[in-house]
Amino acid sequence: MLEELKETVWRANMRLRDEGLVALTWGNASAFDRETRLVVIKPSGVEYGKMSPGDMVVLNLDGRVVEGGCRPSSDTPTHLELYRSFKGVSGIVHTHSVEATAWAQARREIPCYGTTHADCFHGPVPMTRLLTEKEVAEAYELNTGKVIVERFGGLDPLAQPGALVAGHGPFTWGADVMRAVDNAVSLEQIARMARLTERLCAERAATPLPGYVSDKHYRRKHGPDAYYGQKS
Amino acid sequence: MLEELKETVWRANMRLRDEGLVALTWGNASAFDRETRLVVIKPSGVEYGKMSPGDMVVLNLDGRVVEGGCRPSSDTPTHLELYRSFKGVSGIVHTHSVEATAWAQARREIPCYGTTHADCFHGPVPMTRLLTEKEVAEAYELNTGKVIVERFGGLDPLAQPGALVAGHGPFTWGADVMRAVDNAVSLEQIARMARLTERLCAERAATPLPGYVSDKHYRRKHGPDAYYGQKS
Amino acid sequence: MLEELKETVWRANMRLRDEGLVALTWGNASAFDRETRLVVIKPSGVEYGKMSPGDMVVLNLDGRVVEGGCRPSSDTPTHLELYRSFKGVSGIVHTHSVEATAWAQARREIPCYGTTHADCFHGPVPMTRLLTEKEVAEAYELNTGKVIVERFGGLDPLAQPGALVAGHGPFTWGADVMRAVDNAVSLEQIARMARLTERLCAERAATPLPGYVSDKHYRRKHGPDAYYGQKS
Amino acid sequence: MLEELKETVWRANMRLRDEGLVALTWGNASAFDRETRLVVIKPSGVEYGKMSPGDMVVLNLDGRVVEGGCRPSSDTPTHLELYRSFKGVSGIVHTHSVEATAWAQARREIPCYGTTHADCFHGPVPMTRLLTEKEVAEAYELNTGKVIVERFGGLDPLAQPGALVAGHGPFTWGADVMRAVDNAVSLEQIARMARLTERLCAERAATPLPGYVSDKHYRRKHGPDAYYGQKS
Repeated sequence: MLEELKETVWRANMRLRDEGLVALTWGNASAFDRETRLVVIKPSGVEYGKMSPGDMVVLNLDGRVVEGGCRPSSDTPTHLELYRSFKGVSGIVHTHSVEATAWAQARREIPCYGTTHADCFHGPVPMTRLLTEKEVAEAYELNTGKVIVERFGGLDPLAQPGALVAGHGPFTWGADVMRAVDNAVSLEQIARMARLTERLCAERAATPLPGYVSDKHYRRKHGPDAYYGQKS
Repeated sequence: MLEELKETVWRANMRLRDEGLVALTWGNASAFDRETRLVVIKPSGVEYGKMSPGDMVVLNLDGRVVEGGCRPSSDTPTHLELYRSFKGVSGIVHTHSVEATAWAQARREIPCYGTTHADCFHGPVPMTRLLTEKEVAEAYELNTGKVIVERFGGLDPLAQPGALVAGHGPFTWGADVMRAVDNAVSLEQIARMARLTERLCAERAATPLPGYVSDKHYRRKHGPDAYYGQKS
Repeated sequence: MLEELKETVWRANMRLRDEGLVALTWGNASAFDRETRLVVIKPSGVEYGKMSPGDMVVLNLDGRVVEGGCRPSSDTPTHLELYRSFKGVSGIVHTHSVEATAWAQARREIPCYGTTHADCFHGPVPMTRLLTEKEVAEAYELNTGKVIVERFGGLDPLAQPGALVAGHGPFTWGADVMRAVDNAVSLEQIARMARLTERLCAERAATPLPGYVSDKHYRRKHGPDAYYGQKS
Repeated sequence: MLEELKETVWRANMRLRDEGLVALTWGNASAFDRETRLVVIKPSGVEYGKMSPGDMVVLNLDGRVVEGGCRPSSDTPTHLELYRSFKGVSGIVHTHSVEATAWAQARREIPCYGTTHADCFHGPVPMTRLLTEKEVAEAYELNTGKVIVERFGGLDPLAQPGALVAGHGPFTWGADVMRAVDNAVSLEQIARMARLTERLCAERAATPLPGYVSDKHYRRKHGPDAYYGQKS
């Protein structure tokens, strides 16, 4: 069942690896089929190189496995909670991509410093609170979904297509799973750019190169006295 | 029409991806044909893997599409303004490459700290002012071109083949589109080197390795008592 | 002898290169065969591209070469000391991967800042003391193993599957050699995330982009007035 | 003539690109043939993808081209000065690799912080002084060689197989050109590790993850209650 969607979800997961967002077996992507109201998700802890579309697991929104020989991702209850709560979201991605995870570990929302950010997120990237000890003990992955939903009270999840879970890492989503992957890629770029922006604003200028050296180098390559490269 | 130039512009756009300067569908390259006074530019939001030379869009300098089934890059009015204003410029590139964009977001010009910079830019990399609210509301992309041109009052655009647009990212250019790509590559390297240079100047030295360890390691690999590697 | 294990150890060594953990001929992986109590290890200083499974060296736990035409890794005595001391460890990896080595050179244990770390290490990543001048002079590589073992007094080596040797770099291990490689990959990610986390916590926010620019950019791409991309 | 050495020098230059040490046409490698006392060097400004062994230029130590249809690297006089002055050096490499260049631009020698450094350099990586305006004006590339030689008064160039030219970038060398490339790779790694080491020593610890979260995550993956991955 849902063979085409399984293929798409498999490709979405492979893209996570190919885009450099996941190491080892980390990360997972899922899709929600609006018609059957079923979810297709990556199996838990299977190597990317050995994974095929047929390994994708199909579940209903209550978490009952409908098809698949593998155990679903251990983060499945988080995905399901987001599908139940966020209308219009039909694709979800979770990674431990390095730059976004560092912001999650620093427990800081990512401010909007530029148009790259604004192209993808309509406001700062939201950060959840830490889960309580009780929430961790009782239904950890479900409660991870709940703190994301709690943080989005009043926010439009399609205008802010992702969140940082404090001390953990990013979840992104979209109208379909490929757009969720796109948003995971964008978030990693945004996170890195924001870190470097803060650094450059705090930095003081070093000593510039003397003009007689920079002039010499410029004129070695450009203008009438250039001698770099071959004669044309 | 301009089939050869379309092929070149397509290759220039693919190079942006292959050089690691763009993610997803970000970035665009265009060329100006001096004879016909037409511009060839990347279509808007098309995946690099699915884009072919025939998708390139041909426009005149007023922005009227002359040939092409796709919508041109949304940044087209910026390119056109630069072609109209910068004599001798026949290729333009726009990216959100991470290091150059971080300087743009920090709204700092990049000082010339070394010969790598001097080989490409004859002076600091220029930074525009932020656009006003009115400029953004009325003709955002055209006005992006105008603030670049405004910043270059008195500067030679071929000696400073690029600019950082405040809060946005880099534009580079050149006598042809491949040189504009080269300058985008150079600018990203220059931006990273400058960031690291400022950091190293501000840093204090850590504790060196004790000499008895460094001597041991050096002699494991070099000289009469070396035992690393195979006997030759 | 042990042809299958030699093939596995060879593949483990190749993975170190393919995962970007080693440059040139740096790094080595070994496996311990529980049945024969023999160790299979990479030869010293052989280029990865020229190394084949048959070049792997077989030794007993006392360091006597049982089979192999090449000299074993110069770090062999460190591996042997760990196999003798750490019950349940049957695979060991040593690299000079950049991020983990930087922590080793800074002589700082890596604190647990997030779940990526907690997934792999049950506590901070342990750091050894520096070797004394006598320890370096007398049996450097053996004593490198001994300071790791000393640091693990009271710790479970399978719950903390790696250590940083002060001023040197990381060793990781596991129940088999592929898990030791996985732990080397994880450690490098953890080390980088921890460095960035500390930086982001120390950083101060820069000036955000004005809302009129970020709104404009968001609406260029999303919603009823979007004009980015092609008409669907 | 020297066809085999041309092939080797060509491969050495290609390695510079493949190891990520050069962008565009930056960087050059050369070899000195002890028997004929001739130097083989990369041509100036030729794209790596279009360069073949036959493009390598052969010169004598006075800089007279003996064979080759291309102009030699514009840095040739620097290479020749080093061959004339450093006995035992038969291969030289120049790059603008980012991390080493940042130290050169910061005009700081690289201290020895760990065994990776000690494996390759017997002491800090030497830094030259800036050239004077006269030295730049009169024979820039020759004088670049001379300030390197000046800095090595009393140092053994084979024990310190490289230098940073202030405001410019690294030169490395060795007993043959492939070892010079190896040393360029090592220097880039050393430079990056040293930068990160200084940063980590200056950094203050952030807030660790609460134990109840890290315990939970560790036990999701390890031990009797693990539920990550597939049943074996």
